[in-house]
Amino acid sequence: MSISEPLPLVSRRTVVEEWMRQFQDWLCQELEAADGGTVRFQQDAWQHPGGGGGRTRVLQHGQVLEKGGVAFSAVWGTMSEQAAQLLLMPDPGYFATGVSVVQHPRSPLVPISHMNVRYFEAANGEAWFGGGLDLTPIYVDVEQARWFHQQIEAVCALHNPAYYPRFKQWADEYFYLPHRQETRGVGGIFFDRLMVEKDGSFDALFAFVQAVGQVYGRSYSAIMRQNADLPYTTEQKQWQLVRRGRYAEFNLALDRGTRFGLETGGRTESILMSLPPQCQWHYNQQPAPGSPEAATQQWLQKGINWLLEPPISTC
Amino acid sequence: MSISEPLPLVSRRTVVEEWMRQFQDWLCQELEAADGGTVRFQQDAWQHPGGGGGRTRVLQHGQVLEKGGVAFSAVWGTMSEQAAQLLLMPDPGYFATGVSVVQHPRSPLVPISHMNVRYFEAANGEAWFGGGLDLTPIYVDVEQARWFHQQIEAVCALHNPAYYPRFKQWADEYFYLPHRQETRGVGGIFFDRLMVEKDGSFDALFAFVQAVGQVYGRSYSAIMRQNADLPYTTEQKQWQLVRRGRYAEFNLALDRGTRFGLETGGRTESILMSLPPQCQWHYNQQPAPGSPEAATQQWLQKGINWLLEPPISTC
Repeated sequence: MSISEPLPLVSRRTVVEEWMRQFQDWLCQELEAADGGTVRFQQDAWQHPGGGGGRTRVLQHGQVLEKGGVAFSAVWGTMSEQAAQLLLMPDPGYFATGVSVVQHPRSPLVPISHMNVRYFEAANGEAWFGGGLDLTPIYVDVEQARWFHQQIEAVCALHNPAYYPRFKQWADEYFYLPHRQETRGVGGIFFDRLMVEKDGSFDALFAFVQAVGQVYGRSYSAIMRQNADLPYTTEQKQWQLVRRGRYAEFNLALDRGTRFGLETGGRTESILMSLPPQCQWHYNQQPAPGSPEAATQQWLQKGINWLLEPPISTC
Repeated sequence: MSISEPLPLVSRRTVVEEWMRQFQDWLCQELEAADGGTVRFQQDAWQHPGGGGGRTRVLQHGQVLEKGGVAFSAVWGTMSEQAAQLLLMPDPGYFATGVSVVQHPRSPLVPISHMNVRYFEAANGEAWFGGGLDLTPIYVDVEQARWFHQQIEAVCALHNPAYYPRFKQWADEYFYLPHRQETRGVGGIFFDRLMVEKDGSFDALFAFVQAVGQVYGRSYSAIMRQNADLPYTTEQKQWQLVRRGRYAEFNLALDRGTRFGLETGGRTESILMSLPPQCQWHYNQQPAPGSPEAATQQWLQKGINWLLEPPISTC
């Protein structure tokens, strides 16, 4: 390029897409290292018919992770009227990029985890960020749940003191199974449609979303390392399979991202990589009163302030 | 009652409800006998807050059936506006009775089966029947699939020659996973809103629905007996767990009955008794070309005329 040509304009979407791509690389390395370093994520690259595509990475049969997925995508095009309505899009023309993550560990003593960061632009110029992370222990370790929330709260506080309380409550509402009257796990944060300009500058919102991605990688890999070698029983493994059934119920019947993806013709294997490698459903199974399983079930409710010591149950 | 008193008026809903109850008894006996007779269905009776209730019966750890459910309910009340819209109800006041059945056998060589018969009355006087049955083999046995469709076709033909082709096509459309581009199994029949008076007399439609229930009991218990003792391999059991994952996908993400039940506050354990006892999801698993698993997958498509010999694939 000669010196007289103007530098090419780097659009916001290019900047976010590039960060998402690098974040996927970084996160896969973090998780591989926490898994023990002997098993790698395998990548499938795919193209989106409208434009763009993605890199779906899955680690199966790891030392800690039985099945883990870290999916990057950056897609654009024109969505159907129905899809635009579902997604509250101001315009059917869109650009979307994000990284979506679900980890299913082998051990019932290592929690399932989920994280998602995403950025949308509508053809009318509106742009917004969304994201969240949440932890689904098979057995709730109250101290660890508090530590997890503390990490998130600290990151939120650096960006906006209102974020943690607002987005923690949003997660309580979102990661909830009404037909079971229980939360998916101990929650975390969830946020959507953080509008560029209206809710903060592009730089501020983007910095927050980057921090959300990083706190997930740091805190979940720490939990993996901390819990991976704890011995467990076949009864505990059994309870894990039942709790994974609830996870599948949430993802298939309730999760808006999954439903939106399936209904709008997304790549099925990338969307459903979040499903557990194995799970079980028994008719009307109830944990025995006073058992550790019953104790966990008591923590699966909205409105618990995990930052307090000891956390106060809303029972 | 003295001779001069008039006989009490027996309403249609009472007649249908009573048949549904007896049908549940009969079907449980048929299935228990085909299972080997040593394990019984266990019953949970429950009350509906609006009015009525149900008897959910589940057989677990049978000789042939790993988990089988036969649920009867007769409920009435006033549904929410949202529920009335979902169900295309002409009026939120309703009476509904039915029997719903899903069987998950142990052996991968015994197909999963489903049957449902139902009767609705709206408070404005409109009344209708619905129902259906379908077979989900883990490995498609073309002869058995043909025999199953022949039994259904013969019963339909006695009532209305248009029923089988119409309702078979309806089942192809209904028991379909768009995100997998595959049918749930080899299908059967599905019908809804057979309106009393408009689509046939009450007696004629009710007789048809009874016949549908009976052909399910007779044909599925015959298939259980025929296939239960066939030896199978661990690879075949493995494939069953994957196919059961697809079954869970259908029921949780697509089945209107399940979604309606969960969204309107039905009894969760009765609704989700249809879920498989165990299942698996592997990322991007594809059967090896030329394998029996690949052969089965080729049969999982709409529009196959199973009555023809040999059945013609629409590939």
